[in-house]
Amino acid sequence: MNADPDLHAAAERVIAISPFARWIGTRVGDIAPGRVVLRLAVRDEFRQHHGQVHGAVLGYLADTACSWAAATVSGDVVTAEYKINLLAPARGPELEVVGEVVRAGRRQVVARADVFNIADTSRELVATALATIAVVTPRSEEGKP
Amino acid sequence: MNADPDLHAAAERVIAISPFARWIGTRVGDIAPGRVVLRLAVRDEFRQHHGQVHGAVLGYLADTACSWAAATVSGDVVTAEYKINLLAPARGPELEVVGEVVRAGRRQVVARADVFNIADTSRELVATALATIAVVTPRSEEGKP
Amino acid sequence: MNADPDLHAAAERVIAISPFARWIGTRVGDIAPGRVVLRLAVRDEFRQHHGQVHGAVLGYLADTACSWAAATVSGDVVTAEYKINLLAPARGPELEVVGEVVRAGRRQVVARADVFNIADTSRELVATALATIAVVTPRSEEGKP
Amino acid sequence: MNADPDLHAAAERVIAISPFARWIGTRVGDIAPGRVVLRLAVRDEFRQHHGQVHGAVLGYLADTACSWAAATVSGDVVTAEYKINLLAPARGPELEVVGEVVRAGRRQVVARADVFNIADTSRELVATALATIAVVTPRSEEGKP
Repeated sequence: MNADPDLHAAAERVIAISPFARWIGTRVGDIAPGRVVLRLAVRDEFRQHHGQVHGAVLGYLADTACSWAAATVSGDVVTAEYKINLLAPARGPELEVVGEVVRAGRRQVVARADVFNIADTSRELVATALATIAVVTPRSEEGKP
Repeated sequence: MNADPDLHAAAERVIAISPFARWIGTRVGDIAPGRVVLRLAVRDEFRQHHGQVHGAVLGYLADTACSWAAATVSGDVVTAEYKINLLAPARGPELEVVGEVVRAGRRQVVARADVFNIADTSRELVATALATIAVVTPRSEEGKP
Repeated sequence: MNADPDLHAAAERVIAISPFARWIGTRVGDIAPGRVVLRLAVRDEFRQHHGQVHGAVLGYLADTACSWAAATVSGDVVTAEYKINLLAPARGPELEVVGEVVRAGRRQVVARADVFNIADTSRELVATALATIAVVTPRSEEGKP
Repeated sequence: MNADPDLHAAAERVIAISPFARWIGTRVGDIAPGRVVLRLAVRDEFRQHHGQVHGAVLGYLADTACSWAAATVSGDVVTAEYKINLLAPARGPELEVVGEVVRAGRRQVVARADVFNIADTSRELVATALATIAVVTPRSEEGKP
């Protein structure tokens, strides 16, 4: 179910022109103003030397879910910074991230994200993040020469 | 120049068995107790929809440099958390990260990393990170049953 | 209402022997395993030069709520690190923080906290934080020589 | 020695109208564009229940040093977020923080700070922080109606 078909189509268009998002296999789940769910299937290339999914993949999901959640309310955005806690090893076969806007200001949006490892009978929180997303063109400045 | 050939060889061995590190093309530069330099060549797959290197790749470099710097002084480690500020767009053709231990405790190591974009005539700081790395087997506990 | 009178009494005892917590006027609200609510009345000494409550006071609340939430499940703890986003000016007259454990491991606890400004008719989120709390004596090591 | 007497006087004026900075006893050390040193004498009120300086005081120093370093290059600023790692117990009798700008953009400044405990014969790093400081009035927007 997609809460907003326009947002869903816009997210799919961004993936289509983003080599890294395409390589990693990002799939858009529910998307609504202020909240984005993304999923991906774990491939062997994602793993580190202990066999777990590399933290960079969890960081990708957290960063993307935060910035896309911000984009649903604030338009063109760019990640200023994020902090991520890695809570448990992720092994797949599936990962899901839920990103939510905490507060949207005119010039920046604060968002958080939780990353889950999805297996047959379990859904385990494996990482949590808190991000500051910069709005590229604050609305009050749009159209200014 | 490698400050420590044993550490360099150990890092190469970790890359050889780490699918993600190998896919991304991590190369080990200088490595010494408490300090690690890594490099990679930017490929098109690393880019996001604005043509810049995806933040996840910068996050990979920062996380890896922090945890490997920690490993040079504390043995087996795992990243507990990191915070990264994305400072400027990175476009390549080369990226370099310098990771340094700030303080090594018995059970955790704090490290920081700076990521640089390297082009023909420039070396620009594009991201900076601060990380907490957990020591998997604190020395005082080694050998305990 | 206090969900757990023993935890409440223990928190009051810590405040009684903590000069900073006493100076700032920390009051314990609901406290239960994994979740702590604290409140304080804003005094003029807490303000910075724009008249708002200084970020250090919000940082105090976030750090304390995270570490106390961790203590309710893991005993003696110490804050390893925290990240706080300041979302809106806080002016009082009252502040409240809700701290919650995200995941409790054997050696560290990850917790988050939200700080609210409480006025007559409003309750506004003014800061949010994510913290890593180190367990001073992991249970499996207790009693080891 | 103060690298810049005008910046030093400006910082003293901010302290004079900031109740919290005055209560805590902030003293301005070296200050120059992009770099600020602050000091304070530890008082008993600053301590927590283990006798160490409360993390909130270290957070105050880190946040203030980052935002003032940013102010020396970007004018009126406000802290958007910071992350602080507490590295070792601080007991005084003196604390010093060194804040430095990492990168100053038009709308935000990234800065870092190191906090030291100063005793008779030692100077120990007790905390390190990385902060994002928002510029209140970006220069290109000044004077716009």
